[in-house]
Amino acid sequence: MKPIGPIPDGYESRDGELSIGGAKASALVAEHGSPLFVYSRSLLSSRISTLRAAMPEQLNIHYAMKANPFAPLLSQMVELVDGIDIASGGELAMAIEAGAAAEHISFAGPGKRDDELLEAIRAGVTINIESPTECDRALAIGAKEGLQPRLVVRVNPDFDLKGSGMKMGGGAKQFGMDVDLVAPTVRQILDAGADWRGFHIFAGSQALKADAIIETQAQTIALAARLAQQIGQSPVHVNLGGGFGIPYFPGDTPVDVAQVGVALKEQFAELPEILSNTLFAIELGRYLVGEAGVYLTRIVDRKESQGEIFLIADGGLHHQLAASGNFGTVIRRNYPAAIATQYRKPAEEVVSIVGCLCTPLDLLSDHVEMPKAQVGDIVAIFCAGAYGATASPANFLGQGPAKEIIVR
Amino acid sequence: MKPIGPIPDGYESRDGELSIGGAKASALVAEHGSPLFVYSRSLLSSRISTLRAAMPEQLNIHYAMKANPFAPLLSQMVELVDGIDIASGGELAMAIEAGAAAEHISFAGPGKRDDELLEAIRAGVTINIESPTECDRALAIGAKEGLQPRLVVRVNPDFDLKGSGMKMGGGAKQFGMDVDLVAPTVRQILDAGADWRGFHIFAGSQALKADAIIETQAQTIALAARLAQQIGQSPVHVNLGGGFGIPYFPGDTPVDVAQVGVALKEQFAELPEILSNTLFAIELGRYLVGEAGVYLTRIVDRKESQGEIFLIADGGLHHQLAASGNFGTVIRRNYPAAIATQYRKPAEEVVSIVGCLCTPLDLLSDHVEMPKAQVGDIVAIFCAGAYGATASPANFLGQGPAKEIIVR
Repeated sequence: MKPIGPIPDGYESRDGELSIGGAKASALVAEHGSPLFVYSRSLLSSRISTLRAAMPEQLNIHYAMKANPFAPLLSQMVELVDGIDIASGGELAMAIEAGAAAEHISFAGPGKRDDELLEAIRAGVTINIESPTECDRALAIGAKEGLQPRLVVRVNPDFDLKGSGMKMGGGAKQFGMDVDLVAPTVRQILDAGADWRGFHIFAGSQALKADAIIETQAQTIALAARLAQQIGQSPVHVNLGGGFGIPYFPGDTPVDVAQVGVALKEQFAELPEILSNTLFAIELGRYLVGEAGVYLTRIVDRKESQGEIFLIADGGLHHQLAASGNFGTVIRRNYPAAIATQYRKPAEEVVSIVGCLCTPLDLLSDHVEMPKAQVGDIVAIFCAGAYGATASPANFLGQGPAKEIIVR
Repeated sequence: MKPIGPIPDGYESRDGELSIGGAKASALVAEHGSPLFVYSRSLLSSRISTLRAAMPEQLNIHYAMKANPFAPLLSQMVELVDGIDIASGGELAMAIEAGAAAEHISFAGPGKRDDELLEAIRAGVTINIESPTECDRALAIGAKEGLQPRLVVRVNPDFDLKGSGMKMGGGAKQFGMDVDLVAPTVRQILDAGADWRGFHIFAGSQALKADAIIETQAQTIALAARLAQQIGQSPVHVNLGGGFGIPYFPGDTPVDVAQVGVALKEQFAELPEILSNTLFAIELGRYLVGEAGVYLTRIVDRKESQGEIFLIADGGLHHQLAASGNFGTVIRRNYPAAIATQYRKPAEEVVSIVGCLCTPLDLLSDHVEMPKAQVGDIVAIFCAGAYGATASPANFLGQGPAKEIIVR
């Protein structure tokens, strides 16, 4: 038997079933089919409310839409947050369609094509410049179009976020510019008459320890101040990055956001003079939406092989690549999961839950304890709100995407 | 510096560029854009010719279309092989559209839904039965429709393919039926008046050692004979599985198919009486198409960070997940790659080639030696003909799929 990750707070039981936004899993699947991604509006709202209550009032909260660009969810996020962070021309179009104002959109990413820079400059969104040559390209496009680009310089920080699932600083990186290149690039932007907006400093993601996030935020503010001194000008805006993770695996515990908020308030009370009028933001994707989504998939077969029980679902890694352990993880561990139609019933047997694909990679839950489930029961995989549908190979084995819905 | 895998045979240089089907990489990208998958008709044909020349004449060769279902490629494969192996209702539709005859299509997969079984039975394709309950469902659908299903029993072999990248036998598995369940299931099929076609026995994939493949084929034939004896009836057909791998990584060498063919001819010369009229097939996906495809992606930025050089491409893991090391591999190693526009020029520097996605997972070539490349040069990632486009999360970060083309 292997353990599963912790089921997020906020999910209820109704008539012995998992209920999402007041609707039972079986009713949702009966209406919308299986497999199905279900996102909860109330969990999205409550997550942002809790976070805002913990954080300093003047801190802006941005949503990194790469975590989940589903249009109805994105529209709600546009209402709830202060900015949308995009990573491609495709995301730019989706953000504008969802109602985001150009002045609240920032575009980061190491490989922006000229056509994406052109669209971004025409739309008037902020571009996070990742290299000297990208700066040259953006300025040239702005000059040719007769437009003043809004440019932030993305910094490759000389420190990393300790304990983060993905380090994005503290070494040679494709993201942003090394610290010594920042001041000359900002001067080039100012000299060209472009609109220099400040810094983007992203040290890592998916950290669970408040202490590590606090330390990184302090280092980030200090770095921004040092760079501003070098430049001799205050940044309008500093994006402190993200880093807030969510618990996926056994033993993981949620980030203590109250502790992070208290520390950040102290930081803001003692800001260096050059940052005293700067607007700060954090940029979160997974943390805002990950726990608000569940993937439901119907059991189509139950079989035994050499004494082991397999529950075979009609979904799989083509929708839930990360849950199968095949995306960004070295050692496979079990995501939180349950039999949605036998919710909170006592465990009776050890099963492996596999997807429908004809490959041994398609493993959703490996040797987990579950109540006894039959064909027709519905499996719930939690933490499906971020890096699920769009981070999985939907067309693998001719399957196609799962339907996505948002409930109250 | 880290090594790269071996570039497959059959690729030529023209005017200092990689040439595919007689067309230079820069010309292909100028006409079709970047990123781009390019598949070679002549490499597909020559692979099958070489294989047929090595294998016993009476052996059928099937194409497992999950490896690459691109319609023009699939149509060519339908002409070249003796059968198409499918893994979903979606693939069934594609195979028929590509011109495959129903009697040459076999449908395997552990999680077939009722609607997929119904489509398959109506179409008259062979269904590889994976469990007793799936057998019940298929027979019930056949009875209800007044149709005689064509059924093969898929066996979970009691051995595995040594050295295979993915083991699909030799333990508890979601694929097929344990050996002791096979004879009762075949009797049930015969008693129901359905058309029992034989066995499907698939022990593993992506093996490079001829000895291991030979041993597994011998074990497979022996198992088929043993099962036929238990049943007291000869199978019309035995699918011996696949297992032929291709070299991806440093030190990998191609399968010695001549050696496998010689051994299989010997096996066929000494078949047990009960298999003397049986038709045998092997089922290959990656081996047939993997080396016939190249992924081309244009360099949009070249930057240095802390003394290391990054070439940033306009493609990435959203099209080439396996090459990024994020699909089915524990330790990341470099796929064969080259600067297509500086082909076979001497290496001058160590670079990392990354994709355009704003995530550190998007790494195509890690610290590889390459000729000096600039913005506008084109990177080629080889072995892109199998498990590329459809095995990658095309919509990640709002990017969308790459164009695919087939050349002569």
